[in-house]
Amino acid sequence: MKARRVLVVGLGLIGGSLAFALKKRNVCLQVLGISRNAATIDKAVVRGVIDRGATDIDAMTAQLQEGDIVVIATPTLSVKSICEKLHAAVAKGVIVTDVASVKGSVVSDAESVFGRLPENFIPGHPIAGSEKSGIDAVNENLFVRHQVILTPSEKSNAAAVEAVSSLWRAVDAELSLMSVEEHDKVLALTSHLPHMLAYTLVDTLAQRSQNREIFRYAAGGFRDFTRIAGSDPVMWHDIALANRAALLSGLEDFEQHLTSLRCAIENSDGNYLHDLFVRAKSARDAFGEIYASRQQVKQSDSEDKQ
Amino acid sequence: MKARRVLVVGLGLIGGSLAFALKKRNVCLQVLGISRNAATIDKAVVRGVIDRGATDIDAMTAQLQEGDIVVIATPTLSVKSICEKLHAAVAKGVIVTDVASVKGSVVSDAESVFGRLPENFIPGHPIAGSEKSGIDAVNENLFVRHQVILTPSEKSNAAAVEAVSSLWRAVDAELSLMSVEEHDKVLALTSHLPHMLAYTLVDTLAQRSQNREIFRYAAGGFRDFTRIAGSDPVMWHDIALANRAALLSGLEDFEQHLTSLRCAIENSDGNYLHDLFVRAKSARDAFGEIYASRQQVKQSDSEDKQ
Repeated sequence: MKARRVLVVGLGLIGGSLAFALKKRNVCLQVLGISRNAATIDKAVVRGVIDRGATDIDAMTAQLQEGDIVVIATPTLSVKSICEKLHAAVAKGVIVTDVASVKGSVVSDAESVFGRLPENFIPGHPIAGSEKSGIDAVNENLFVRHQVILTPSEKSNAAAVEAVSSLWRAVDAELSLMSVEEHDKVLALTSHLPHMLAYTLVDTLAQRSQNREIFRYAAGGFRDFTRIAGSDPVMWHDIALANRAALLSGLEDFEQHLTSLRCAIENSDGNYLHDLFVRAKSARDAFGEIYASRQQVKQSDSEDKQ
Repeated sequence: MKARRVLVVGLGLIGGSLAFALKKRNVCLQVLGISRNAATIDKAVVRGVIDRGATDIDAMTAQLQEGDIVVIATPTLSVKSICEKLHAAVAKGVIVTDVASVKGSVVSDAESVFGRLPENFIPGHPIAGSEKSGIDAVNENLFVRHQVILTPSEKSNAAAVEAVSSLWRAVDAELSLMSVEEHDKVLALTSHLPHMLAYTLVDTLAQRSQNREIFRYAAGGFRDFTRIAGSDPVMWHDIALANRAALLSGLEDFEQHLTSLRCAIENSDGNYLHDLFVRAKSARDAFGEIYASRQQVKQSDSEDKQ
């Protein structure tokens, strides 16, 4: 059954790309969009990203009915203020989901607004993106063969879980279910920690006196780092604060390993270094096939995020 | 004037690709190769990477004459043992260069073998590569529009500098001259440090109990890290030890910055985080155009190294 209406709140890269993908695939009767910026809405309508948009969320949600879906696609820490505007919609049986990179903070924000996580609020996280951001970067195939993780609770409405799952399957994403805690731990390590290291490295080197030479002669290793350090600062500010505990645990673990490496270099401990490099390469090679198979369907050189 | 003969010692990714590039472009009369492994030589001859090869360097260098060029393309710490075999060739006026990622250790190795850096020994470093290694990965266009840094001394023979420069220009590389010290500092930061971080991150995460999940859901940030952690362990062992001082200086600097970041997350210091991310993104964007223009001529998704 076709979803009736989908309202995407926030027309950045993720929200805009989801809206565009739904429109292009003719998945629902109407794709609506909210942006604080009227110019963004105009662009989105002209480019066929949405059918209709508004800067005022209240006017738009008033039109929604039971079974319609709201996708919150704003930076993580603004999810709460959006939830506060959704009381009436949730009461009507509108389904709510989100795309934030941290799920624990979204759930506790929803709990603080609604008293508990509404049974029709199904938290979600598409693991896709780019260091580019904003409406100009939208891509109708951003989610093709990319993982989308949903973190419903035991009390979630099964029909709502299915409706949100259908939405993502319709844009060719691959779905997984996970607990909120597991999601936040895994993403802290695979995505949030690497981004923190990239930002720190780029900032460290930019402050060196030879920074022009450094950037000029940058080889691949550093170029990969700089690329992910080009991601949206507001988004990453929110992620770092929202997933504080899991990120700190990963950071502390990493710092211990880095200290051991530094000591080995100080002591010219070749055995330690060789064992470490072999171990890391083996871990990498063991999972290389997963990446290789995904690589084949990559739309561009530039996908990452969250 | 066409170089007469080029002897490449070590037919790994870099040595093999240089030999192949010279052959394909018909740059010199003969391209000769040395490998410890007879099967590698057979492969190299069959694929047209070299004209002729041997496992015994002495027999091959005996045939060289004044103006011929030897390219040492073995792991950094084995350069010294190769130099020990080159006394007679150097005495004849054969030109020597190398491709090691660290230049200070090469120069001191050459000094210890020859008493001083021979005037015809021109240290060099092509900033190109891949996480793939070995003869099977050779690529005749590996150096196209990639930087090659030469670090001659004041006493270097100008004709030898020109001969080595011509060789790299002939395979479409872009040449720069730099002091040994500057090279090692810049590369420590742009390449050696990022590789150490990548190895450490992959190793840290592989030891976590959820490591299967971690690798399965890895987003772009982490995938970039795992890719460079797939590089050759022996090469990186040698680099870490050979460029110890410059690498330690970079590591200590990075660790201080990382500690500040961790403290900011611990204290939920949003201003610090936001400023850091904006600063790093600005630095990245300022140099983005350099990378973008290089990106256009990339032969594949997988270039990095050293």
